[in-house]
Order: sequence, then C-alpha cells, then structure tokens
Amino acid sequence: MSSPSSPSRCYKIATIPGDGIGIELTQSTLQVLNRLASLTNIQLEFGHFDWSSAKYHERGWYMPSDGITQLREYDAVFFGAVGWPDVPDHISLWELILPIRKSMNQYVNVRPTRILPGTVSPLRNCQPGDLDWVIVRENSEGEYAGQGGITHAAPYSIATEVAVFTYPGIERVMRFAFETARSRPKKHLTLVTKSNAQRYGMVLWDSVFYDVAKEYPDVRTDKMLVDAMTVRMTRNPKSLDTIVATNLFGDILSDLAAGLSGSIGIAASSNLDPTRKNPSMFEPISGSAPDIAGQGIANPIGAFWSAAEMIRWVGDGKLDLEADMLMKAIENVTAAGIKTRDLGGECNMLDVTEAICGEMDR
Amino acid sequence: MSSPSSPSRCYKIATIPGDGIGIELTQSTLQVLNRLASLTNIQLEFGHFDWSSAKYHERGWYMPSDGITQLREYDAVFFGAVGWPDVPDHISLWELILPIRKSMNQYVNVRPTRILPGTVSPLRNCQPGDLDWVIVRENSEGEYAGQGGITHAAPYSIATEVAVFTYPGIERVMRFAFETARSRPKKHLTLVTKSNAQRYGMVLWDSVFYDVAKEYPDVRTDKMLVDAMTVRMTRNPKSLDTIVATNLFGDILSDLAAGLSGSIGIAASSNLDPTRKNPSMFEPISGSAPDIAGQGIANPIGAFWSAAEMIRWVGDGKLDLEADMLMKAIENVTAAGIKTRDLGGECNMLDVTEAICGEMDR
Ligand SMILES: CC(C)[C@H](C(=O)O)[C@@H](O)C(=O)O
Ligand SMILES: CC(C)[C@H](C(=O)O)[C@@H](O)C(=O)O
Repeated sequence: MSSPSSPSRCYKIATIPGDGIGIELTQSTLQVLNRLASLTNIQLEFGHFDWSSAKYHERGWYMPSDGITQLREYDAVFFGAVGWPDVPDHISLWELILPIRKSMNQYVNVRPTRILPGTVSPLRNCQPGDLDWVIVRENSEGEYAGQGGITHAAPYSIATEVAVFTYPGIERVMRFAFETARSRPKKHLTLVTKSNAQRYGMVLWDSVFYDVAKEYPDVRTDKMLVDAMTVRMTRNPKSLDTIVATNLFGDILSDLAAGLSGSIGIAASSNLDPTRKNPSMFEPISGSAPDIAGQGIANPIGAFWSAAEMIRWVGDGKLDLEADMLMKAIENVTAAGIKTRDLGGECNMLDVTEAICGEMDR
Repeated sequence: MSSPSSPSRCYKIATIPGDGIGIELTQSTLQVLNRLASLTNIQLEFGHFDWSSAKYHERGWYMPSDGITQLREYDAVFFGAVGWPDVPDHISLWELILPIRKSMNQYVNVRPTRILPGTVSPLRNCQPGDLDWVIVRENSEGEYAGQGGITHAAPYSIATEVAVFTYPGIERVMRFAFETARSRPKKHLTLVTKSNAQRYGMVLWDSVFYDVAKEYPDVRTDKMLVDAMTVRMTRNPKSLDTIVATNLFGDILSDLAAGLSGSIGIAASSNLDPTRKNPSMFEPISGSAPDIAGQGIANPIGAFWSAAEMIRWVGDGKLDLEADMLMKAIENVTAAGIKTRDLGGECNMLDVTEAICGEMDR
C-alpha cells in the first residue's frame, strides 16, 4: 500500500519501555511503527528513556529531576509498563507513570474496547459488534489525587485517602466525553459514579454531567452506579457506547471491559492533554506482567492499538489513514487466527508482530 | 419434612421493607419464613417498620430518632431495599441503610455467590461449580466513612471524599475473612486493594492482611489489584474462593459476582456484628428496582437466601438444618426451572415463592 498522504513533518516519539513485558512490547511496537513509517510518508524519530525499576535499584530514582522537561521535547510518549515485585508498587507508580500523567496535564484517559475479528468474548451471548465501547476516564484528580496520610504505629494506625474533585477538573473531562460520544454513531454517553454512597465528589460529578449535557442535546445520556454498571456490562454490553467515569472507576471498568472483550492484552489507552500544550502518552494497560515477562509470549495488540492511537493523535487529523492502516492490519491478523495464548491462539509476540508488519505491506 | 431440631426460643425479627421491590420481596420472604416456621420448631415473631421514601415524603424523615434503639429489641433485621427516584439517593441511603450498618456495628458484610442449579452464568466457560465465592466486605469505614465536603459554588466547586481506614477496623474484618476462608474446603483467601495508586489506606490494608495471615498458616492467600481482579473473575472464576475487600471494592465486586453467577436478583447479603452485641441485618442487594417495582416479577431468591442466612445467624449453630432446608428448597426450585425472567425463566415472584414453600413441605 502506498502512502495515502503527502510528506509529513517528522514526529518525535519518546519511548519509556519500563518494566517486564513493557520492554518487549515497546520493542515490537518500534518494529511495527518503523514498518508503518517505511510504507508511508510518516517520519518518526525516537528517543529512548530507560526509566525502570531495574534502574531505580541502581540509582535510587525512576525519572531524573528534569524528566518532564525532557519529555516535553517530544510530540508524544509511548509507555510500556511500570512495576516490578522488588519495588513496592505505590513507589514505582508515584515516581513514574502518575507524575507524568499529572505534570503533563493528561487529564483524559481514553480506553477503547471492542471484540476484534477472530476473537471471542468470555460472555456467552456476546458476538463481535455487541461490545464496542469507549471509556473516557478522568486522569488527573479524584481518587488519584494522592492526598491522605497515615498516622500512629500499628496496631493503632489510621490512614486516609482523600479524593479531590474540582468543577473545572470534572467539566473538562465531561466535555471531552460528550465530544467523543457525539463523534460515534450511537451518540450515547453513560455516566458512572457512586453518588448514593459518596455524597460530595460523586454528587458534584453528577451535577456537572447534567450541566454539560445541556450543551449536547444530540447526545443520549444515562447514569449508572458503579456497582450496577458491572452487571450491565456483563448482561447487556450492547446497551453501552461511550462511558465517562472517575479516575478509579475508569480504571476498574476499563480492565473489566478489556476482560470482557477477550483479554487485557488487547487493551489500549491514550493519556491525553487535549489542549496539546504537552505531549500525550500512549500505553497498553496490561501492566508489566512479571509472570510472563521475558518469554516473548505477551500479547502485543494493546501496545500496537495504543501506537495507532498515538499516530492518530500526533497527526491531529492528518494521519488518520495511517492509523487506520495499522488498525486494519491488527484486525486482519486476529481475523486470520494469528493470536497469542491469552486470546486462545498459539502464537508468540514475534509471530503476531511479523504478521502485522506483513499485513501492512500488502 | 419434620423438624430436625428441638423446640427453640422465639426469635424476634424486625422487617424494614423500604422502597420499590423491597416491599414485595419482604412480603414473599415473610411467606417463606412463616412456612419454614410452621414446618419446624422455629418460632419467629415479626415487627414491621415502615421506614421508606414514601414516608419520608409525608413526614420528612426515614427513621425516628430512637430508630436504632427500637431495632435493638430484635434478634435480627430483614431489610428490603431503599431508594426511590424522587429522593436523591445519597439522602435515602445516609438516612436509613448506612446509619443502621454503622450504628449497629455491622462491620462485616458477607456476600456469597454461586451458580444455582438450573441457572446459567453469562460466562461462556463457566459451569455450575466453577464459581463459588464468598466476598467478605468491610462494612463500617473506608470509602463509606462519610467524610469529606464540598466548597464554593459552581463553577468553582471543590469536593473531597475522605476514606478513613483504621488498623482495628481492618483487623477485625480480616480476621472474619480468614475464619470464613478456613471454614471452606479450599481454604483460600484473596485480598483485593488498590495499593499501587492509593498509598495510605490501601497500603495499610495490605500490611494488616499479612499481619493477620501469620495466624492462619493453613489458609492459602493471594493479593489482587481491584482492576485486575475484575479480569480474573471473568476469566478464571474457578481460581477464586473467599475474597476480602474494602467497603467500596466489596460493593463493586459483589455486584459483578452476582452478575456473573446469573443475576443480581439472587444476591444475598448479611450485615453482621460478629460480637453479637447488636442485631445483624440481612438484605438482598438487588436494590429497589423502580423499573420493575409493583409488578410482582422481581426475583425473590436474593431475599430468601438472605433470610436463610438470617436463620443461620440467629440460631448461632442451632438452626443450621432449618437454614439448609430453605436453601435446599431454593435450589430444588431453580433446578426445576421455576425461575423469574432475569434468570431466563418465565415465572413471577409468586410462582417462585409458592414453589419454594411447596418444596419445603415435601
Ligand atoms: C499502573 C496503575 C497506576 C494504573 C492505574 O491505576 O491507573 C493502571 O492500572 C492503569 O490502568 O493504567
Ligand atoms: C444502597 C447502597 C448504599 C449499597 C452500598 O453501596 O453498600 C448497595 O449498593 C449495596 O451493595 O448494599
């Protein structure tokens, strides 16, 4: 396939492979992106950042103090995974992935899911096409505000977790969610909160939702409590389209969504700064998966899907065909049954990667 | 079947039907419990409390100021449901169900789930027997501490939700969870937290878990992050047995668990004060379901299952056979295909209720 667009400027991509399967996934993603570039007029230039738990052990830090400034030199960040059993997770995350999301104003986390061709939902009555969701997760505040503390030694300890929600913080993600819903055929947005039990932040979420909804009369809306939402996702996936949720609920529901579409290994995410003042970050959400790391058997699709979204985002309308070309190749390959074990196949990461490269070539 | 046990003392049960299908479910439950009593030597005496959203409209309150004192006269409370569209949910809940749980020291919420005979999981590869879980939910603090606030008018509002976790509060529910796990054949307990993102309360949860685990070397343990847990529940239900989680995560996971076992309509719960200084409370978790209320089509099994657990609890070892008799009748009836629509059947609440009464009679 020859390039569908005219010569483009060079896009600078920072990669942070991180830990575990993040390393292999990033390698495979580079292979696929380089192939995509060679087949089209996209020019990509990569910068590599070895910020990882292994390095943390060596040096005592994950990111250098000017880490965010370094990343700001790039058009986008591709992130593999962070977390390794020998560092407490709350340290690795709060020293690497969470500061990037927060400092770079990536206040939206977009998590699309659908059943890819040739793959099967664990749900009995769910055919491809019955499950096609985009979860818009608030990504900067709420339950991930990082506030709270712990006092007194055991056995008297008292700990608090303080979730902080602001009207502007909610409104901006809500607006993004309504725009997303509007851009999709069903134009349907479901709000997920727990405003019956959580009387302050969640009630504010509900009210901002209704405020913003007035500007989008063409978007059909409904509202679910997070507990009941999990039941609806398993019983009636067809009844959902675009979903907006807080940082924590978006995290939980997007994992469930990935599971219900076949595997967490296909789950992609885009951490976006919609103002485009900062680079956005793209990451598969499967995590570092210590149990299978280094074996070359991880499913690379979540990483490639994230990369496709990255190309779409940096192109800002100019690289949609190229992003689609990668997505189409992914779908053709799953349709052909070339799948890793988590999807019921027998291939390893390299097989899938090469098949997708080959598919783009055709 | 004649009574398996000798004459017992009279147990006083307070019923709070509440709203929506809670009213019908409580009626059917009384029918079933009266039948059970007539067939055995259990003596039950009921007190009825019309604390509901309808009454709130009339009088401006849900519970009288001495409501808790009134309930303390009883051996147990049976609760239908609370919540109705014309009262904001955070008001109805914080004026009725949540104060009861908290004031009566019901610090454990036990939520058993399994696939009942003759019913089908929405999961493709899940046979009856593959999913048999007990979720032990912390029920007194954490994300339901009710702390937090909201300041500034829109569009500048800032809201906080403060989750409060205490060592003793965690330890007591942990101990209950380990005892529960120990009493089950698999002796396996899974801890669910989000200690990677929530650095204070969740990290404390993890550490108390490991502290208490030392006293239960015979119980096999593992630990999941709540997001990954939803995936494991859908992909590998057999790998789970007893689960312990915070108030919010227990709420979310128990709804998902009920959905995966066939329907939220079968979901039972026991709000326990394990010290037995206060009556415990038993409630189906399906909620008031305004969409189907008053039609007599709700699934009563969650209510009956809760009632069976109530009999077991008040009997404190002396009424296990009677509780089993009710459970067995429930299972025989689902096995015979006498099921409400949510379970794929065609019966209404009365059909199921009468079938279960008839089954106990045999
Ligand atoms: C790694 C962790 C902080 C993260 C989150 O909870 O946001 C992950 O679960 C995700 O979904 O991106
Ligand atoms: C009604 C509501 C407060 C409640 C909860 O969140 O605890 C319900 O969802 C439950 O599961 O019992």
